[in-house]
Amino acid sequence: MEKVDHIGISVRNLEEQITYYTEVLGLKLLKIEEVPSQNVRVAFLDAGNVHIELLEPLSEEGAIYNHIQKRGEGIQHVAFKVKDIREEMQDLKGKGVRLLSEEPVPAAGGAEAAFIHPKESFGVLYELYDKGEKGD
Amino acid sequence: MEKVDHIGISVRNLEEQITYYTEVLGLKLLKIEEVPSQNVRVAFLDAGNVHIELLEPLSEEGAIYNHIQKRGEGIQHVAFKVKDIREEMQDLKGKGVRLLSEEPVPAAGGAEAAFIHPKESFGVLYELYDKGEKGD
Repeated sequence: MEKVDHIGISVRNLEEQITYYTEVLGLKLLKIEEVPSQNVRVAFLDAGNVHIELLEPLSEEGAIYNHIQKRGEGIQHVAFKVKDIREEMQDLKGKGVRLLSEEPVPAAGGAEAAFIHPKESFGVLYELYDKGEKGD
Repeated sequence: MEKVDHIGISVRNLEEQITYYTEVLGLKLLKIEEVPSQNVRVAFLDAGNVHIELLEPLSEEGAIYNHIQKRGEGIQHVAFKVKDIREEMQDLKGKGVRLLSEEPVPAAGGAEAAFIHPKESFGVLYELYDKGEKGD
């Protein structure tokens, strides 16, 4: 894993939290985007060296909605930036690590994502996040 | 807030998780340290742009032990690096934000820390973390 791209936080109300993050914590709002494939609307904030991704469910289904129902609002995942997601997935599978999907799934910002089964990581949900920036 | 210093994760068994983070995820172990004031033993791992702090309770008391009892192992806090913790605390108090202590408390690595009440941050526990590196 190269570095942390973002910290993903499940939220009930995106606008309310954007106000808190920008006006109280002083972070800059980078963009707001809908990711229909994950049934969320997301806001990216600049925390200097990493982004904070606020994820609001679009309806009463999907991983983010379920996370809020089960555990309340809060940190849902941490995303590692990777250069070649298929290679990383193969590498992890070779080590016997369970992933949540066989293939990468579409993610915010036109990226591809895959998730390590949280039981492998002792309760933490880690995302592999590939923005397609091979040279970075 | 300047940048994220580390992501704090509560763990039951430090050695078992260090093996996972170094051998499976490929992160480098930086150091292991006891922080008696917080009743934890911590390991810092290098995730490139941020550190991952694994916190194991030393006994059956304290915030980390309670976190594991209530929610299981997993992400417990996110720490923002700050240059002047007292100034940041004053600034937040001036905005009406509740903190978990009136004064900074000793943290790992000889740093000073303070926590924003998680209800202010919609369920996320944010730490202000001051390593005393004024010029950085």
